[in-house]
Amino acid sequence: MVLSLDRLNKIRSIDTVANTMVAEAGCILGNLRRAAEEKHRLLPLSLAAEDSCQIGGNLATNAGGVNVVRYGMARELVLGIEAVLPNGEIYHGLRTLRKDNTGYDLKQLFIGSEGTLGVITAAALRLYARNDARCVVLAAVEDPASALKLFEFLFGVCGGRLQAFEYFTGACVDLVLEQVDGVQDPFPQRYPGYVLVELADTVDIEALNSQVEVAIGGSLEQGLCVDAVVSTSLAQLQSLWRLREEISEAQRADGPHLKHDVSIPIERIPDFMLAMETKLHKMEAGVRPYIFGHFGDGNLHYNVSRPVGADKSWSTTAGKALTTEVLNEVLRFGGSISAEHGIGQLKREDFLETKDPLELRLMLEIKKVFDPASIMNPGKLL
Amino acid sequence: MVLSLDRLNKIRSIDTVANTMVAEAGCILGNLRRAAEEKHRLLPLSLAAEDSCQIGGNLATNAGGVNVVRYGMARELVLGIEAVLPNGEIYHGLRTLRKDNTGYDLKQLFIGSEGTLGVITAAALRLYARNDARCVVLAAVEDPASALKLFEFLFGVCGGRLQAFEYFTGACVDLVLEQVDGVQDPFPQRYPGYVLVELADTVDIEALNSQVEVAIGGSLEQGLCVDAVVSTSLAQLQSLWRLREEISEAQRADGPHLKHDVSIPIERIPDFMLAMETKLHKMEAGVRPYIFGHFGDGNLHYNVSRPVGADKSWSTTAGKALTTEVLNEVLRFGGSISAEHGIGQLKREDFLETKDPLELRLMLEIKKVFDPASIMNPGKLL
Ligand SMILES: Cc1cc2nc3c(=O)[nH]c(=O)nc-3n(C[C@H](O)[C@H](O)[C@H](O)COP(=O)(O)OP(=O)(O)OC[C@H]3O[C@@H](n4cnc5c(N)ncnc54)[C@H](O)[C@@H]3O)c2cc1C
Ligand SMILES: Cc1cc2nc3c(=O)[nH]c(=O)nc-3n(C[C@H](O)[C@H](O)[C@H](O)COP(=O)(O)OP(=O)(O)OC[C@H]3O[C@@H](n4cnc5c(N)ncnc54)[C@H](O)[C@@H]3O)c2cc1C
Repeated sequence: MVLSLDRLNKIRSIDTVANTMVAEAGCILGNLRRAAEEKHRLLPLSLAAEDSCQIGGNLATNAGGVNVVRYGMARELVLGIEAVLPNGEIYHGLRTLRKDNTGYDLKQLFIGSEGTLGVITAAALRLYARNDARCVVLAAVEDPASALKLFEFLFGVCGGRLQAFEYFTGACVDLVLEQVDGVQDPFPQRYPGYVLVELADTVDIEALNSQVEVAIGGSLEQGLCVDAVVSTSLAQLQSLWRLREEISEAQRADGPHLKHDVSIPIERIPDFMLAMETKLHKMEAGVRPYIFGHFGDGNLHYNVSRPVGADKSWSTTAGKALTTEVLNEVLRFGGSISAEHGIGQLKREDFLETKDPLELRLMLEIKKVFDPASIMNPGKLL
Repeated sequence: MVLSLDRLNKIRSIDTVANTMVAEAGCILGNLRRAAEEKHRLLPLSLAAEDSCQIGGNLATNAGGVNVVRYGMARELVLGIEAVLPNGEIYHGLRTLRKDNTGYDLKQLFIGSEGTLGVITAAALRLYARNDARCVVLAAVEDPASALKLFEFLFGVCGGRLQAFEYFTGACVDLVLEQVDGVQDPFPQRYPGYVLVELADTVDIEALNSQVEVAIGGSLEQGLCVDAVVSTSLAQLQSLWRLREEISEAQRADGPHLKHDVSIPIERIPDFMLAMETKLHKMEAGVRPYIFGHFGDGNLHYNVSRPVGADKSWSTTAGKALTTEVLNEVLRFGGSISAEHGIGQLKREDFLETKDPLELRLMLEIKKVFDPASIMNPGKLL
């Protein structure tokens, strides 16, 4: 049985005093973002799929995206949830309260449960102040260790204004320029790595820009980055973002590849990247890692493309062993094999094999509390 | 059996790149805050008990405090938890990852569970950038409705800088001045209500001050407040805070009273306050409500003192009926009967009577998953 929530698509309320929005589960994320914006508020959840995915799906998968470093995951944006349990009972948790310490926080179980406990029908979400002043910096870095130091420095100086800290390798830029039309590289030469930082504030773009100029000046002086451009217009800001955003599209155009959405304790990313690359090349010469992602959250999309000239079936045949290697290395570094995309069917075996047995047992027993007949989303997650 | 975690008091790590702190459950909150500060980071959880309470207790009760409007409750600050289950098994959830979508988020159950599921032994916490620029405004308002409009306006303009938005009535100020030595009222007259706003930023106190001046100028012009002082030194900032912080002490000095830690959907606070006060005075002439709290979170400490001249036993005898009235009115307004203090033993009956039966049933079954023999904190919460 497939359930469509397309017609549960009403925004029930937006409150600019309480800074809350109550929306039905079938609402398209992008529509919710625009509705908040019209009321001078911000719904910070933002991802490339926002004009097709539904808020119910976002919460069921605890979606992440580009602004997690400032606003957290989908989970952090939820004040309340309404859900229908498998037996038809309704969980009336659609509260907009910011504080409610009356027992276990049941809504947390629905978030990220991938539809295995019940159907989310509506959600109460937190809104933030709208940031009309935005500024993007593209910084070229020598290596991931410099990116890390740059993150530490900018976080300390800019604090909450830092709302995206994305990383990608020089190889990603090569691929984007090769595969996607109309993207521009603002630098005269290729660098080993790039960091895209977005800073934003409610008001006063001049103050923001001059703060960013000072911070980037300091970074260049300290050698945390080797080159940098700062956006001076919205058009330039969007053009810089394209270098990052088109990486997935460029990889698609290049052909089938291995995708790994992993997270690593952020301070260990440089060591992980070094160890991983050595391992990969030892396993198969010529494989092409395209590494990018939400560096500030420790979240890498550690994707691997076939060696030049290899058959397109590589990712489902010979290449497959590399996935096991990547996921094992992630776990050795204390990371997660699914940072923001969840488990679904694809990662179910890896998940069941690698998750701590106690945690698995608790999850299965909680599943039984909500769904004793196990009718919700069979074959997914658990 | 009573368990003391006093000696589980080590800070295992502070990381200024990952912005995380791993601390054992027996650490005193104030010590953790100071340790973060030394590393130029902020642990935002802040409450009057911080130099005696333990981080394990804070998480077990999902503590709130004065900075929730910016940083959220204790729950929002937790990245990972280590806990011992009643059967001695260890839940190894002490991860510092910001993104980990591999199944149900079990740690959320421990937070706010008041020790009924297991013993928290350590926690991984989020740190933020330290705010060295701080500014406090004390604004006098005509009524709660103006306080609400002031909140909406300042939130829109100042965004994330707004880190406390506290409200208290003129009666509270009278009581503080009467009962506590050395507190100063900066205004030449008494007003019906007061709002204490703290704004803070990583750097540049001048920029912050001038932004606040403009915002408060706008508020006065629009009639959102009728008078205001802005702190110009740390000493003045602390002195303004005392007017708010000494209210509990002043009430204690005045004698036994009814305490209600409730939350209301913030946009409904003015209506609630009006309705409640009318009801109270109808029930018993001369009762003295002292209303203060974390207005920006919809959290009121709706305390009620005995009529002047009434016996000190009033709060445990005749006055008790008022508590039922207050909690019922809170529920009628869609609020929570325990905003930040939890249930414990004191509110257990009210909780069991008023909680949605489905939620109660789910909680009891989850309790059984973790603690089938029901040996953890008997008589508390459930
Ligand atoms: C181009 C693209 C870019 C993306 N970028 C990012 C990114 O940057 N960060 C990130 O985190 N994710 C990203 N994603 C993944 C995205 O977060 C998820 O696809 C999305 O959140 C799921 O929403 P959906 O409406 O598509 O759900 P679906 O795909 O329909 O469902 C996802 C799961 O949730 C369940 N589900 C759906 N609705 C409900 C409901 N109402 N109640 C209970 N269960 C439900 C389904 O059964 C299914 O198991 C991206 C996806 C695409 C296609
Ligand atoms: C002066 C004062 C001001 C306060 N102001 C505020 C405020 O502004 N906002 C607010 O939210 N709260 C406030 N509080 C309440 C405060 O948040 C709690 O008292 C505190 O968080 C509890 O920590 P504790 O170490 O005192 O825990 P305890 O009182 O020892 O325990 C509280 C509960 O948690 C359980 N528990 C304790 N440790 C653990 C553990 N390691 N694992 C599992 N369960 C555990 C206990 O069994 C008990 O049920 C205030 C308290 C005081 C005394």
